[in-house]
Amino acid sequence: MIDDRNGSAKDVPVAVLGLGLMGRALAGAFLRAGHPTTVWNRTPGKADELAAAGARPAATPEEAVGAAGLVVVCVFDHTAVRALLDRLDAADRGLLAGRVLVDLTSGTAAGAREHAARVAAAGGGYLDGAILAVPPAIGTPEAVVLYSGAQADFERHAPALRSLAPDATTHLGEDHGLSALHDAAVLGLMWSVLNGFLHGAALLGAAGADAAAFAPLAARSTVTVAGWLADYARQIDAGAYPADDATLETHAAAMDHLAEESAALGVSTELPDLVRALAGRALAAGRGGESYAALIEQFRRPAPPAGPDGGE
Amino acid sequence: MIDDRNGSAKDVPVAVLGLGLMGRALAGAFLRAGHPTTVWNRTPGKADELAAAGARPAATPEEAVGAAGLVVVCVFDHTAVRALLDRLDAADRGLLAGRVLVDLTSGTAAGAREHAARVAAAGGGYLDGAILAVPPAIGTPEAVVLYSGAQADFERHAPALRSLAPDATTHLGEDHGLSALHDAAVLGLMWSVLNGFLHGAALLGAAGADAAAFAPLAARSTVTVAGWLADYARQIDAGAYPADDATLETHAAAMDHLAEESAALGVSTELPDLVRALAGRALAAGRGGESYAALIEQFRRPAPPAGPDGGE
Ligand SMILES: NC(=O)c1ccc[n+]([C@@H]2O[C@H](COP(=O)([O-])OP(=O)(O)OC[C@H]3O[C@@H](n4cnc5c(N)ncnc54)[C@H](OP(=O)(O)O)[C@@H]3O)[C@@H](O)[C@H]2O)c1
Ligand SMILES: NC(=O)c1ccc[n+]([C@@H]2O[C@H](COP(=O)([O-])OP(=O)(O)OC[C@H]3O[C@@H](n4cnc5c(N)ncnc54)[C@H](OP(=O)(O)O)[C@@H]3O)[C@@H](O)[C@H]2O)c1
Repeated sequence: MIDDRNGSAKDVPVAVLGLGLMGRALAGAFLRAGHPTTVWNRTPGKADELAAAGARPAATPEEAVGAAGLVVVCVFDHTAVRALLDRLDAADRGLLAGRVLVDLTSGTAAGAREHAARVAAAGGGYLDGAILAVPPAIGTPEAVVLYSGAQADFERHAPALRSLAPDATTHLGEDHGLSALHDAAVLGLMWSVLNGFLHGAALLGAAGADAAAFAPLAARSTVTVAGWLADYARQIDAGAYPADDATLETHAAAMDHLAEESAALGVSTELPDLVRALAGRALAAGRGGESYAALIEQFRRPAPPAGPDGGE
Repeated sequence: MIDDRNGSAKDVPVAVLGLGLMGRALAGAFLRAGHPTTVWNRTPGKADELAAAGARPAATPEEAVGAAGLVVVCVFDHTAVRALLDRLDAADRGLLAGRVLVDLTSGTAAGAREHAARVAAAGGGYLDGAILAVPPAIGTPEAVVLYSGAQADFERHAPALRSLAPDATTHLGEDHGLSALHDAAVLGLMWSVLNGFLHGAALLGAAGADAAAFAPLAARSTVTVAGWLADYARQIDAGAYPADDATLETHAAAMDHLAEESAALGVSTELPDLVRALAGRALAAGRGGESYAALIEQFRRPAPPAGPDGGE
């Protein structure tokens, strides 16, 4: 039961509560890594395949928690986690003492802090986690899982948690809200990439071109832009935005072309409108000669209410 | 003067009109590839370095055009191209006959078609081009330049044009508007990626985290998402959106988290608002069980006017 530095403590017992698409993937990865794994799901039946692979199904969440020092929860949402904690509490107030509960359910920073306080009051440790991966990627080098909470709790269980994300099991800090916050930031970026692609596909589609013809160009351009982020991040942290590549003024001129093409072809102008609103405010603030990263200042505060010329 | 199949017609004379940041990079690449290159700029002085490298400076645009069968124009905008065509027209109505003018100035599809008609009336060929590269990338494998216009004009000059983008000199089709349209689509995607990154950096920054700490995670996630585009494109072209990865309903729940975190930290909610508006309309249309690609239908038409619950 002592984790060594090499992460080879294969005999650390683990419990997994919640066996949806993701919970089953998590339990499967613990099993493949050699951990004695106890599993529980609200609705029976979902543990059958895991049991065949060597998992021990528990009849109640209390029983599952009682079997392990590391308890992983992955249910639908914050409310489902709260219901589970209520149930554990009602069954045995001392049950979580000395154990670490790792919540991999998606949620908010405020929700994570609420759960952490509650588990702490019961004498347990709490790590909040964010899974940046689809279920089939769990246990592969592609998976990224971010954690926040006490450093000691993370270090104690990192060897077992690496079964889920061998190459990217990352501790963000002690504030329990950090993983939910990073999750939101990454998801916002993901939707932005997808929306940019869909807008382009709609634009070209209106002119008769296939999305499949656009995809390789779009993927190539996306990867190129990903390569610029580190430099822009340095500008943001330094608070200075030299336009080594192109000025916001040059960007703004091309944004007008995007809006014009979109309107001419009858596709949605929501994305060009957002892009132009942000750049327009930066230009009005005298930032036209700076790089795209200067727009960070527009993201840092709530948008001004749409004025009489807000419809521009 | 005959281009062979191997693109080794190094002796094809080229003229470059407009020697700004980009025009100088273009002329430099033609020179390095061995083409006799005549250059002209409205304001004198910008040809000096190129002349030292072997370019022949022309005193007038007419003189430059007269020296080459392939005439590349790269000036500030559509209006500047029009002014240049006016000037050529005034000097000699027959000057463009038998030559191909390649316009690499950024513009719109409508603008490209206007120039094409005008050059055709003067007996010349016209290719519109879009440069997806910064000046230092011209002539390197990183550069992408897209062309649209007559196939024969493209094929005749492709060997010389490959001096600018050796790995990605692409002919999109005969419609002169295609390159400007693809340019807009790629730029919209680029701004989306950057805005997604800036929103995330603002969110994490409000919680005290550096943008530099976010950048590697953001870049990794962006590259991962780029890898999904081909599959989503296939769904779009097929008009069927099976949720093999995650449903729009699952995305929508996480979008609420992004909006909540953004509001709680006082950062702009413009990006989450757009994301939620699009997904909300798809859910209302009964698309909740489909994949993210189903949102293409929301991009394909103008957004509905914000109703009484549009502020939601
Ligand atoms: N799937 C992904 O790609 C992915 C990626 C990253 C993060 N996540 C997150 O992982 C979590 C689970 O996702 P999933 O894909 O596994 O969802 P899912 O397949 O819908 O499974 C939901 C699970 O939650 C359980 N549950 C719901 N309410 C409950 C309650 N009140 N008490 C106890 N258990 C309850 C369900 O039990 P029953 O069987 O009894 O209904 C089921 O096991 C979500 O927060 C999701 O956002 C998923
Ligand atoms: N820079 C990039 O990263 C990049 C990338 C892709 C596409 N582009 C596109 O390439 C084009 C040129 O960009 P750039 O970066 O070279 O801009 P730039 O450095 O500002 O140069 C603009 C050029 O246009 C000329 N010009 C302006 N008005 C003119 C007129 N009425 N008649 C004749 N010439 C005129 C200028 O001549 P003077 O010297 O006389 O002012 C100058 O040579 C733009 O359409 C831009 O969008 C640039």
